[in-house]
Amino acid sequence: MPLSARNHLQGEITEILLGTVTALITVKVGDNLVESVITRRSAEEMGLRKGDRVTAVIKATEVMIQKD
Amino acid sequence: MPLSARNHLQGEITEILLGTVTALITVKVGDNLVESVITRRSAEEMGLRKGDRVTAVIKATEVMIQKD
Amino acid sequence: MPLSARNHLQGEITEILLGTVTALITVKVGDNLVESVITRRSAEEMGLRKGDRVTAVIKATEVMIQKD
Amino acid sequence: MPLSARNHLQGEITEILLGTVTALITVKVGDNLVESVITRRSAEEMGLRKGDRVTAVIKATEVMIQKD
Amino acid sequence: MPLSARNHLQGEITEILLGTVTALITVKVGDNLVESVITRRSAEEMGLRKGDRVTAVIKATEVMIQKD
Amino acid sequence: MPLSARNHLQGEITEILLGTVTALITVKVGDNLVESVITRRSAEEMGLRKGDRVTAVIKATEVMIQKD
Repeated sequence: MPLSARNHLQGEITEILLGTVTALITVKVGDNLVESVITRRSAEEMGLRKGDRVTAVIKATEVMIQKD
Repeated sequence: MPLSARNHLQGEITEILLGTVTALITVKVGDNLVESVITRRSAEEMGLRKGDRVTAVIKATEVMIQKD
Repeated sequence: MPLSARNHLQGEITEILLGTVTALITVKVGDNLVESVITRRSAEEMGLRKGDRVTAVIKATEVMIQKD
Repeated sequence: MPLSARNHLQGEITEILLGTVTALITVKVGDNLVESVITRRSAEEMGLRKGDRVTAVIKATEVMIQKD
Repeated sequence: MPLSARNHLQGEITEILLGTVTALITVKVGDNLVESVITRRSAEEMGLRKGDRVTAVIKATEVMIQKD
Repeated sequence: MPLSARNHLQGEITEILLGTVTALITVKVGDNLVESVITRRSAEEMGLRKGDRVTAVIKATEVMIQKD
C-alpha cells in the first residue's frame, strides 16, 4: 500500500464535466456512481477520458456514516 | 436528495474500533471495504454496531482520481 | 441523529452563485454568514433558492480553532 | 481578511476532551454548539481552556447543505 | 500560534487562475509548487496578486503519506 | 501523474506518535515540518518508521492561503 488513504474504489469514468478551475468526474463503481471534484488541470494532465479505468481514492477522515 | 454530498454508498458495518476521541468504522460496500474516521461520540450516540446497515457519505470535493 | 457529522447549523439562504461545476451558497446562521461550495448539480437537484431554510452540515475534523 | 477560509464563527470553549493524538474541542457559537477535532498538540501549544474566547474556522469547500 | 492548523508553508504566488466560483492559486514554497483551490471571492477580497508573499495553511487531517 | 492530488512534498519522517485510531506523522520537507494525521492502521501496514523517505500528499481543495 503506497498511499495512506484507506479507500480505493475501482471503476470506470462515465462522465467528465470541465469548468475553468475544477472538473467533475463521475466513476461507476459496482452499482454506485462516485462523483469527484478535482482541478481541471489534473483532469487534463492525466488525460482522463470517458471509459478510462480509474480508482476513486478517499481519506478515511473524509467519510461520514449515516444510519439507515 | 436532502444533503448536498454527492456520494452515498450503502453497506454493512463489519468492524468498529473505538479510541478516546475518534472511532474507525469499517463498512462493506459491494466488494469494497470503506473505512471512516468519525468521533467516538457520534459512534456512541448513533448506537453503531457491527452488522448495522449504514450509508457512507462523502462530499465530492474529497474524492481523488487515480489512473490505473 | 442520522448522520455522524457533528455540526448542523440552521439558517436561510441569502445568495446563490452558480459556476459550471461548483456553486457558492451563502446561509445566514444567527448573526453569522456561512459560505459553502457544493456542486452546481446538487444546488440544482435540491432546487435551492434564496430564502430556503437549510442546514449547513460540517464534519468535526474540518473545523479549526483560532484563539482570539 | 488574513486567511482565505470563508467561515469564522466566534464563541466560547465549553469542553475539551484530550486523546493521544487528537482532541475534541466544543465551542458555543450563538445558540449552536460547534465541535472540532484538532491535534492534541495544537490544543496544548495554544493553551486552550474551557471558557476561552475562540473562533471556529472552516473552509467553504468543507460545508455541505441540507434542505430542511 | 493563533490557528490550530499545523502546517504553514511560506512562499510566493506564481500564478492565479480565476473561475466563476473558485480560483486556483499556485505558490512557490522552497523547491515545491503548492496549489490551492479557494473561492474567487477570497482571492479578490484579499487582493491576491502574482508575486505576493503568502502562507499556504493546511490542517494535519488533510495530509496523506505516500511511501517512496 | 497517477493521482489527481496536486501537491506532493518529498521529505523524511522525523517523528511518529501512535494513538488507538489515529497516528501523527511529522515529515521534514526542505526547511518546513509537515504534520499529518492518518490512521494508525495505515502507519502500521505501511511500516512507517523514523527516517523513512516519504511524500506528503495534499488535495488542492484542502489548502488555504494566508496573506503575510
